[in-house]
Amino acid sequence: MLLTIIYIIAITAEAMTGALSAGRRSMDWFGVVLIACVTALGGGSVRDVLLGHYPLTWVKHPEYLVLTALAALFTILVAKWMKHLRNLFLALDALGLICFTLIGCQVALQMQHSYVIAAVSGVITGVFGGILRDTLCNDVPLVFRRELYASVSFVSAWCYLLCIEFQVQADLSLIITLIFGFVFRMLAIRNHWEMPKFIYHDESH
Amino acid sequence: MLLTIIYIIAITAEAMTGALSAGRRSMDWFGVVLIACVTALGGGSVRDVLLGHYPLTWVKHPEYLVLTALAALFTILVAKWMKHLRNLFLALDALGLICFTLIGCQVALQMQHSYVIAAVSGVITGVFGGILRDTLCNDVPLVFRRELYASVSFVSAWCYLLCIEFQVQADLSLIITLIFGFVFRMLAIRNHWEMPKFIYHDESH
Amino acid sequence: MLLTIIYIIAITAEAMTGALSAGRRSMDWFGVVLIACVTALGGGSVRDVLLGHYPLTWVKHPEYLVLTALAALFTILVAKWMKHLRNLFLALDALGLICFTLIGCQVALQMQHSYVIAAVSGVITGVFGGILRDTLCNDVPLVFRRELYASVSFVSAWCYLLCIEFQVQADLSLIITLIFGFVFRMLAIRNHWEMPKFIYHDESH
Repeated sequence: MLLTIIYIIAITAEAMTGALSAGRRSMDWFGVVLIACVTALGGGSVRDVLLGHYPLTWVKHPEYLVLTALAALFTILVAKWMKHLRNLFLALDALGLICFTLIGCQVALQMQHSYVIAAVSGVITGVFGGILRDTLCNDVPLVFRRELYASVSFVSAWCYLLCIEFQVQADLSLIITLIFGFVFRMLAIRNHWEMPKFIYHDESH
Repeated sequence: MLLTIIYIIAITAEAMTGALSAGRRSMDWFGVVLIACVTALGGGSVRDVLLGHYPLTWVKHPEYLVLTALAALFTILVAKWMKHLRNLFLALDALGLICFTLIGCQVALQMQHSYVIAAVSGVITGVFGGILRDTLCNDVPLVFRRELYASVSFVSAWCYLLCIEFQVQADLSLIITLIFGFVFRMLAIRNHWEMPKFIYHDESH
Repeated sequence: MLLTIIYIIAITAEAMTGALSAGRRSMDWFGVVLIACVTALGGGSVRDVLLGHYPLTWVKHPEYLVLTALAALFTILVAKWMKHLRNLFLALDALGLICFTLIGCQVALQMQHSYVIAAVSGVITGVFGGILRDTLCNDVPLVFRRELYASVSFVSAWCYLLCIEFQVQADLSLIITLIFGFVFRMLAIRNHWEMPKFIYHDESH
């Protein structure tokens, strides 16, 4: 229940950031809606397709698709005020990242997959929306070039799986992971924590 | 039956335009065949994967795959005459767009999905071939930067769904939608109708 | 059994070349691991998703996923020595290409698909890891612009299917195809055999 409310807030926020990305590429309104939907719902869709978990969330709940589409169109109207809300959106995006990760873990565990697959499922749900957005907008995915993001998702997934392993009560596990992941991500942004980069040059190629 | 004939013409035409895109990127013959197949059959494949509708069309009918591959190789031979046929290919592409959209709607309805999902399924079938082509050729998808295209698919899908809602006879629904969508797309090209663009700049990022 | 050993060597080698690609784009360690996994396991995943062959290999055997992730991290450590091993990796990549192709053919045949689909399944398994890697790294896929690669996969697939058609003993079919494909690819590299390219320019567009 808590997770559903956060999920709805998160896909709305993700759709709005996706719409801004499309706007940076001067796409038309249809492109804006597509990029918004892909950003908000793409991570879960990639997870469901890879795990064979049908029907996909937005196919079962078309209202989520309508919501992201409306959020995208709304973004076009309010774009000029969005930059003043940058911190709010960073916070909502952090909340969404952890929420998506938790849902991804839950889906894999419900399908009786191992902890490794559950963690991978969580990370895929958390980060693939952004990867697809950047691929469609013809960028190298930002996810791997900025502050800790995929790593926050990965560590949060294991935090949740540890809670489950030690049989922490279900709702408490969610809340612990949400707070832990959110604070971790916020600290990463504030302090510019980054994963070390692997920089490789070769003369050939 | 009518739809099958139009479908075969459409995948051939789409394969040929895909082959030209690959040629613009100086790909080798194998790349040309791949891009042609992705352009012609990619929209339906994305739809089937997202809806869990197996087997995919080209897996069930490998002859469609062979047809698109042959069309791609044929295009290499006749490329120098293709530019004189530009208007013919624009018309065939318009026909294909509506035909793909109709098939996408039908597949979703057969699977008992709602009208919203049927319309989305139609648009995915109609436009994702082109999106995948542009992504593999490393372009920002053209679909969202030119004359009305995805929108024609979307409006045609709802035209068809309205016909079904009002229990118009099945073949007549197809013909009405084909004519309506084709004329709409042709008028959009002739008059350079475009969706409004969302142009967004921010200093950060 | 033989194929499993070669498969494990191949995904390790592919993961390491994927990691180097990510390093050329200065990705962070998480990106390096993702690109490595996509390069090594992406071809099989695309095949399984398109054929509806669940669960995917790495979902069933998470140890392969862990192996490719570790290979990626190991690559970061030893990157500076990798250029001296260039020929070794070209050979391992060739072995992997044929091994992946064989596995792709086998999966499609086990699902009772036709020879055409089996050959396509083999090629997809062989080359899509590289295509996804290049798409995520924002390149036009190399597969279609260098020495014979997809073609080697395609011809090897038919070599294997011919062996099966003529009821050659199962292990012998694998060994014949592995040797044939490997030698073919090595000769293609040494002699710079390339597919003819299709180069197309038009003033419009």
